[in-house]
Amino acid sequence: EQPRHQDMAKNTYMRWRLPLVCLLWEAAMIVLFGVFVRFGTEADAHWEEEKQEMNLTSDIENDFYFRYPSFQDVHVMIFVGFGFLMTFLKRYGFGAVGFNFLLAAFGIQWALLMQGWFHSFKDGKILIGVENLINADFCVGSVCIAFGAILGKTSPIQLLVMTLFQVTLFSVNEYILLNLLHVKDAGGSMTIHTFGAYFGLTVTRILYRPNLEQSKDKQGSVYHSDLFAMIGTLYLWMYWPSFNSAISDHGDAQHRAAINTYCSLAACVLTTMAFSSMLQKKGKLDMVHIQNATLAGGVAVGTSAEMMLTPYGSLIVGALSGIVSTVGYVYFTPFLESRLHIQDTCGIHNLHAMPGLIGGIVGAITAAAATEDVYGKEGFIKAFDFTGVYRTRTPSIQGGFQAAGIVVSLLMAFAGGAIVGGILKLPIWGDAAAENCFEDAVYWEVPEDEENDVYHMHNPDKPASP
Amino acid sequence: EQPRHQDMAKNTYMRWRLPLVCLLWEAAMIVLFGVFVRFGTEADAHWEEEKQEMNLTSDIENDFYFRYPSFQDVHVMIFVGFGFLMTFLKRYGFGAVGFNFLLAAFGIQWALLMQGWFHSFKDGKILIGVENLINADFCVGSVCIAFGAILGKTSPIQLLVMTLFQVTLFSVNEYILLNLLHVKDAGGSMTIHTFGAYFGLTVTRILYRPNLEQSKDKQGSVYHSDLFAMIGTLYLWMYWPSFNSAISDHGDAQHRAAINTYCSLAACVLTTMAFSSMLQKKGKLDMVHIQNATLAGGVAVGTSAEMMLTPYGSLIVGALSGIVSTVGYVYFTPFLESRLHIQDTCGIHNLHAMPGLIGGIVGAITAAAATEDVYGKEGFIKAFDFTGVYRTRTPSIQGGFQAAGIVVSLLMAFAGGAIVGGILKLPIWGDAAAENCFEDAVYWEVPEDEENDVYHMHNPDKPASP
Amino acid sequence: EQPRHQDMAKNTYMRWRLPLVCLLWEAAMIVLFGVFVRFGTEADAHWEEEKQEMNLTSDIENDFYFRYPSFQDVHVMIFVGFGFLMTFLKRYGFGAVGFNFLLAAFGIQWALLMQGWFHSFKDGKILIGVENLINADFCVGSVCIAFGAILGKTSPIQLLVMTLFQVTLFSVNEYILLNLLHVKDAGGSMTIHTFGAYFGLTVTRILYRPNLEQSKDKQGSVYHSDLFAMIGTLYLWMYWPSFNSAISDHGDAQHRAAINTYCSLAACVLTTMAFSSMLQKKGKLDMVHIQNATLAGGVAVGTSAEMMLTPYGSLIVGALSGIVSTVGYVYFTPFLESRLHIQDTCGIHNLHAMPGLIGGIVGAITAAAATEDVYGKEGFIKAFDFTGVYRTRTPSIQGGFQAAGIVVSLLMAFAGGAIVGGILKLPIWGDAAAENCFEDAVYWEVPEDEENDVYHMHNPDKPASP
Repeated sequence: EQPRHQDMAKNTYMRWRLPLVCLLWEAAMIVLFGVFVRFGTEADAHWEEEKQEMNLTSDIENDFYFRYPSFQDVHVMIFVGFGFLMTFLKRYGFGAVGFNFLLAAFGIQWALLMQGWFHSFKDGKILIGVENLINADFCVGSVCIAFGAILGKTSPIQLLVMTLFQVTLFSVNEYILLNLLHVKDAGGSMTIHTFGAYFGLTVTRILYRPNLEQSKDKQGSVYHSDLFAMIGTLYLWMYWPSFNSAISDHGDAQHRAAINTYCSLAACVLTTMAFSSMLQKKGKLDMVHIQNATLAGGVAVGTSAEMMLTPYGSLIVGALSGIVSTVGYVYFTPFLESRLHIQDTCGIHNLHAMPGLIGGIVGAITAAAATEDVYGKEGFIKAFDFTGVYRTRTPSIQGGFQAAGIVVSLLMAFAGGAIVGGILKLPIWGDAAAENCFEDAVYWEVPEDEENDVYHMHNPDKPASP
Repeated sequence: EQPRHQDMAKNTYMRWRLPLVCLLWEAAMIVLFGVFVRFGTEADAHWEEEKQEMNLTSDIENDFYFRYPSFQDVHVMIFVGFGFLMTFLKRYGFGAVGFNFLLAAFGIQWALLMQGWFHSFKDGKILIGVENLINADFCVGSVCIAFGAILGKTSPIQLLVMTLFQVTLFSVNEYILLNLLHVKDAGGSMTIHTFGAYFGLTVTRILYRPNLEQSKDKQGSVYHSDLFAMIGTLYLWMYWPSFNSAISDHGDAQHRAAINTYCSLAACVLTTMAFSSMLQKKGKLDMVHIQNATLAGGVAVGTSAEMMLTPYGSLIVGALSGIVSTVGYVYFTPFLESRLHIQDTCGIHNLHAMPGLIGGIVGAITAAAATEDVYGKEGFIKAFDFTGVYRTRTPSIQGGFQAAGIVVSLLMAFAGGAIVGGILKLPIWGDAAAENCFEDAVYWEVPEDEENDVYHMHNPDKPASP
Repeated sequence: EQPRHQDMAKNTYMRWRLPLVCLLWEAAMIVLFGVFVRFGTEADAHWEEEKQEMNLTSDIENDFYFRYPSFQDVHVMIFVGFGFLMTFLKRYGFGAVGFNFLLAAFGIQWALLMQGWFHSFKDGKILIGVENLINADFCVGSVCIAFGAILGKTSPIQLLVMTLFQVTLFSVNEYILLNLLHVKDAGGSMTIHTFGAYFGLTVTRILYRPNLEQSKDKQGSVYHSDLFAMIGTLYLWMYWPSFNSAISDHGDAQHRAAINTYCSLAACVLTTMAFSSMLQKKGKLDMVHIQNATLAGGVAVGTSAEMMLTPYGSLIVGALSGIVSTVGYVYFTPFLESRLHIQDTCGIHNLHAMPGLIGGIVGAITAAAATEDVYGKEGFIKAFDFTGVYRTRTPSIQGGFQAAGIVVSLLMAFAGGAIVGGILKLPIWGDAAAENCFEDAVYWEVPEDEENDVYHMHNPDKPASP
């Protein structure tokens, strides 16, 4: 069998490099987990005794029952949602689902450690429970977002290296926001979306490929790949209420976050459809917009969903973000590529960056506008955790800190992305040449006859050999 | 690039019409939500205080934890279940998933308002919680059903217009059944399936297209589109126990509804497979039956699932409905088309109309047969809510009212479907000509090369241009 | 239309045989359910009274709320997980999803009865609740595993016959392990995976087809069928924490089981990727490994997940099982086929048999190593149910019994598989000839034009007739 791509200038041979990275890192995880990670109180067999001490009369009070259903929904969003959303490319389905699987599986382990050191460290041990699993998934979500910008242009090793660094930076940024600035961001408009998207955009800027038009024919979708992508879209869309409510306070906050997100996403679909048709000469709908911009409503209420945003507030935010995102796909993405040399495969600038900023700003405004009247005396304190040293914080000051959180996230994203982009630019990671981008055959065994079929289709003058 | 369909007699240009409808209606939603919709007690930040007043000791008593997992399952059924079930057509996958997405996203907003006015209106405000979200999804479910009858033959604007009216009529019908007749219908055999299906069948009758055989070649499936459809089928099948139990009373009623539905659906699969093979000369199984008739068991216990139907009762109902539905696909659907001019793309008559009627009847019988012995004294009162003005109602009277509910649903469906069908017949909505039905390219940007490939396949003598 | 497969030496005509089996068996189910099956306490309308007797203050104490979300996840794993995992074959997608649907729908009914007689029998009735539904799904899971070995080579009737016997034997084996040996196996490493896999491997050994290379061209995948299979993989992977925790004790045990499984699966992905690349000359990743071996980590903690395995213990087990499973696909599967005449279509030996054994052994070791110090005094007794006649059991004795459970499961699998394989070898069940294996057209109506397309692709010299 002769090689199909004669021009592989670059060495994409993974045989020893990829296994080495995977095995060494997994070994490191095992050692670090061995030293640091233990079950939290509610997952430890000692809970029987804890329960008595805490005066709990029922097992249902275990945090597992408050959060596990949401956790599973978030888990589906990370692995099926992001994985399949990126299968829209005609010849990169294996890479989309498979590399997303790889980086997320590594990322959640590293995130359990990093976030654990910052948030769940007690007596030299990281104590984990279901909330840690959700947070690890969240952290990896920001990597999946960044992956969207460089989809099809990087080797699996580059993705693992990026994951290692991005999870680390995410955790630092999250610590600054949640612990030092005392910012609320349950659905992660700032920590996940703004940070993840601008990080990814910076990385892809640094990895700019001037000859990428050589693989232009593979950058599009085919009919069935667009349907596979819709699986990803719909699971993200449907489960986003769980995403934004998963780590909110028990009770009304989780309940409210789900309702706000539900409303925002519903509105977002209508404005996306409207602008998708309006911005196209023939007035036809574009699957790229439906697959992506319909989700902007979830991103844009990520900070404020657990606040008293109100259902109509959510509709406004969702409607607005659908418009911004769709306009972004039509006008900003080509602009970013041609003028700023930012090649953004999935258009994360439109789905995560801009809606993430909107989310941060809406969160700051909603926090600044909070009153005891709207929240109730106790609800007000609980919603913003105005206790201890934060006892005297006012809503307007909280709004200011929320805004600062946006700025910090942006700075971390740009600085971190620049450094990590520089590292990924080193010629040792096995990325493909420009003409082989967006092509699974570089890193995957691709079924023979299908390849022939497709080959045949695109080259009707050549007979397909069975 | 030359136009592919030269004969577009009708004006399907959506550029201004679709955006206008979407944006105006979304604006209306925002205004109406602003005036009317607020968080219910359990989603409002005041809940901290309510909890004390209601003497609740734990956040787990929030309705969110009773219903949110079921809500998410129902949500998946509406968007992935119905959406993908309809992707079986070879060239209408975008329309199936995408238009279902559009109409459902609009419909849930309008349903929150309509159902809110009828059921959650207090002091001039609609107070919403997770149960409202489920009910909105349910209401939209009936529109998705009606969509099945007209799939491939209508413009997105027609679908939005139908959704507006059908949600309105659904809510009126639901109010009559639940509040005036005091009927039980937790899984919606009558309100969702019977109403939705006969409404859709009436609409498609009025929109009868005499020349539909011109797009005959596009009315079938291809191998992979049948697999996409199975994603929809399985999610509907698996989550149906959640559907039928989602709004039942807390505790045993939800538990029982899930078990009954599980049993009914299991039995339904076996009789569907049996009749699919038996009714075909070559004895081979037909994917159309497996995709649809296996679900009839869920429809047919929609009213009675929360009652003491018993597991064997559920098996009987499920087995029966699988048979009726499969026979319907083989014999009734062609009859309806040729004799009654009812063109029912997805065969909703077999999956929703007949099983919905069975469900209503089984519900009436099960209610009429209820005894204090079977339900227990308190359980009996709770199951049928025989309190207040209904204190003196007997099971047989309840059975009579249940039967009346079927009749009312049918009348509402026929009358409403006739009116809405008439409105949709106006030549201003941009529906396609008969020869362009079941074709995504009319309303969607379809990936170029795939179209070429398929074109090439069907026209081997013509070379495929890249 | 002329027959496509002229050489059908065997009679695969299903028209009367399949309907007869389906209808008779469903009738039997109805009768047996009518005699035996009733609602358990928590699903019966009498629960209102029970609640008072049991002094329960809230409906949330109903087992439904502890287990229903996990049940739905398990349900998805059985029907979408296993169903789509097996769609990787290019021409057997209908059979994979459809026959899995059929056998599982029958199997859960029969399992409710068989397991009910052993575990939920009271006063002549089987009393069922949500835990019974989970256990029925579990039992059927072992049949889905065995189906993987014989995928593409058996008729639907053979699958139903196998299901009947395997569910019966599963229930006996489960009774021996759980009740007689008092073994812990919440995630079923022994009862589900070891038993199911070795049962299936024995069956496929007895059904050995010497001429199977005649359908070699259909044993592979095509590009899109590999993506469909990834849907199955990911749902199995994501929901496995629910699988292993679904029937664990309320509270910390369920919580712990989910965390251990999450960790094990994450580690498994990295070692699978590493070895998939390493064991291939070109260093490319193989979708077969990614689709299957990434799941071995879930199997391998099936017994120990609810024990104090600890997160790092889970990483070790997961990492190890990923390696064993991938190595199995590369070296053992060809060996089993060529030397032992075991034709294992899906490679269940690598995904379920070996990881299942690992799971049993790890469970035995973890149990033997348990101490009151690690579990707490009460937690220790609760975790292993060392009450009543088992009051005096020590961890090391428990470890011994756990090991005995592995041996019993193996013996039951071999003996049962041999008998059932012999029954399935009878020439009356309508299986296809070797050259028609892995081909949907034998038992399914396959869309005409797609078949032509594919036919055309493989035979470019023949024109495709429309």
